Amino acid sequence: MESIKVVAFDADDTLWVNEPFFSNAEREFCILMEDYLTHQSISQILFKTQIDNLPLYGYGIKGFTLSMIEAANYISKGTIKANTIEKILNIGKELLTKPIELLDDVEDILGELQGKYRLVVATKGDLKDQHRKLHKSGLGPYFHHIEVMTDKEKIDYEKLLKRLDVQPKEFIMIGNSLRSDVLPVLELGAYAVHVPFHTTWLHEHIDHAVEHANFKTITKLSEIKKILL
Amino acid sequence: MESIKVVAFDADDTLWVNEPFFSNAEREFCILMEDYLTHQSISQILFKTQIDNLPLYGYGIKGFTLSMIEAANYISKGTIKANTIEKILNIGKELLTKPIELLDDVEDILGELQGKYRLVVATKGDLKDQHRKLHKSGLGPYFHHIEVMTDKEKIDYEKLLKRLDVQPKEFIMIGNSLRSDVLPVLELGAYAVHVPFHTTWLHEHIDHAVEHANFKTITKLSEIKKILL
Repeated sequence: MESIKVVAFDADDTLWVNEPFFSNAEREFCILMEDYLTHQSISQILFKTQIDNLPLYGYGIKGFTLSMIEAANYISKGTIKANTIEKILNIGKELLTKPIELLDDVEDILGELQGKYRLVVATKGDLKDQHRKLHKSGLGPYFHHIEVMTDKEKIDYEKLLKRLDVQPKEFIMIGNSLRSDVLPVLELGAYAVHVPFHTTWLHEHIDHAVEHANFKTITKLSEIKKILL
Repeated sequence: MESIKVVAFDADDTLWVNEPFFSNAEREFCILMEDYLTHQSISQILFKTQIDNLPLYGYGIKGFTLSMIEAANYISKGTIKANTIEKILNIGKELLTKPIELLDDVEDILGELQGKYRLVVATKGDLKDQHRKLHKSGLGPYFHHIEVMTDKEKIDYEKLLKRLDVQPKEFIMIGNSLRSDVLPVLELGAYAVHVPFHTTWLHEHIDHAVEHANFKTITKLSEIKKILL
């Protein structure tokens, strides 16, 4: 661990609350569409639409909004009303203006790590939206910069390390998703720390436990201090 | 000019064709909506919707598609049909799958500059879409990396130079937009080259000429070789 130079933090549900906003938006969408199908069926169709659109849209609120509209057309068999489409557009816009709710102790932790490591944010999502959230969070000054990634596969981390000009053993990633923040990072030979959040998007689920010399799980973010300080 | 280390290229309408695809999409949108208003009025409403949404959506195809849907609701006074919404979604998806048409001599130029400078792409737009286009263009290997920027104001270039770890006098930007690729770069004290494209989005227009010691206009991209080689 003495080799670490760059500490990268995932943003959504690692530094600040995110998934509960999406879950609420999905619930609002289900209520809008409940004349057609059960909430469960609506959610399933929305999820499938999102996953089918990922290669085109990537991650983030704008793609999510477009997928809600497409799913509404499909669920209503082409009978959806304009004012429902307008409500869906507004669900998306509300997501894009949510206040930032920092998770516990984030500022304190960043304050203690700053100066000892190069701190970066490494996140998926909408480019504009993630920059907005970092700015509104007030955490900007703690970070060297933010990297909004198109995906978090091994190859994306390879490119990230190249851009940051660091070796795998000099890089540690901290995040709430085993699939996106941990597994590809360990594959590269870098370090990873998992901080579970109480809710995770289905797409991020994995069905096996992770064990690796370069890997640790902590129950709250402040425990990172014991690892890095 | 001997101080230049990083040569940054804008992408859309500098390396490859872009604006004509958006113009065609806008024309398709006008045809879809022509029962309600003249093409000119439809275009004006779409433009206003896009500009109003820029702070939330940023640049790119997904935001453009959401703005088309919002404008369709407005233009139709809430009577738009689901199958028109579906057609609008498809206009957006088609934009996201357009083939890449490189502009003249791009590969030749990049081949000659490679190795002599650090080459980067510096562009606005959808994160996922710009990465897709760079990949599909086959130009990826010529570039150190791609920077998808939320905006191209002076502050965005300041951050870019900080991330690239270069001084203004070591940086030159080449692009088709005086507003986005030239003026903020000159303000920083860096170099800029303008390569006009035959069509430019209204939002990028400026109404005055540019004269500056660090600035040149060329009529085609290959003339950059006379400046940099």
